[in-house]
Amino acid sequence: MNDLATLIGVPVDVVADLIKTLADRELTVATAESLTGGLLAALLTEIPGSSAVVRGGLVVYASDLKQTLAGVDARLLTARGPVDPDVAEALARGARERCGADIGVGLTGVAGPDQQNGIAVGTWFCAVAGPGNRRSLRTGAPEAPPATTPTRAAIRAQAVRAAVDLLANIAATDS
Amino acid sequence: MNDLATLIGVPVDVVADLIKTLADRELTVATAESLTGGLLAALLTEIPGSSAVVRGGLVVYASDLKQTLAGVDARLLTARGPVDPDVAEALARGARERCGADIGVGLTGVAGPDQQNGIAVGTWFCAVAGPGNRRSLRTGAPEAPPATTPTRAAIRAQAVRAAVDLLANIAATDS
Repeated sequence: MNDLATLIGVPVDVVADLIKTLADRELTVATAESLTGGLLAALLTEIPGSSAVVRGGLVVYASDLKQTLAGVDARLLTARGPVDPDVAEALARGARERCGADIGVGLTGVAGPDQQNGIAVGTWFCAVAGPGNRRSLRTGAPEAPPATTPTRAAIRAQAVRAAVDLLANIAATDS
Repeated sequence: MNDLATLIGVPVDVVADLIKTLADRELTVATAESLTGGLLAALLTEIPGSSAVVRGGLVVYASDLKQTLAGVDARLLTARGPVDPDVAEALARGARERCGADIGVGLTGVAGPDQQNGIAVGTWFCAVAGPGNRRSLRTGAPEAPPATTPTRAAIRAQAVRAAVDLLANIAATDS
């Protein structure tokens, strides 16, 4: 194994097909990643020709950057905390707007090893905004005990695979 | 192999030690990545406890985002193009300022498969800005023919390893 796609557990051809289909449809993408810290953007940009599709992204690891870089409403962050479906959607919209893309992806969650604000390790939300008014959301939940707690890498990879899947759904849909 | 550090070719202990030393010294980091598209930020945030060190980052894949997100001077970009040592330093400073970190890292280069503005595949610049007025730069050059052209993944991994090394140098230096 010597590519990022294989490490993440998605066939490299699936990512390459996604980039090609988005390019054919002239759709651009941007990311706002907390949980995954840039891993989705790194995966997409490993594909040759991705510069026609990937505008860029925001790694909003510190909570205040979710507001300052991605434009997430401070009241929403205070009320719900950073790991929340509406925060994921706000990150997706922020990525789209701040990076000037057709499609934005927002990723937030708890990779562990510690829970965060009472939210269990393995909880995550992946939201996609656009093109147009289109919205989609995928959620990850921790496995019930006595399941072994997955590693940070496994949780992050699961969320990135969900993002690729949501993007592939959009790419496969007639506009 | 099931971790990002191994894929990139840096021992995971080296990255974990880097995070720990930066945390002990209360130094925070932010990235502005073109060439590597988020791979450095993803590597750093795979380490448990990295949230004490990593503020966030900017993935500035499209050239105009180098200006709008990272604040690189438009005249510099026009005069030199995006793959340039001064652009790398401007990205490092931009990451530091826009993300409110002590240390900024800027990465730009040509991953291929095509050359860019006459600059050969495998050329890259990695700049670090801070803490304080500290500056450092590492450069990658394509191998002379008839060497085989390295893959995108290999070029990106080489640049990320350089960034880890520059950060480790800072972490190991008494302030």
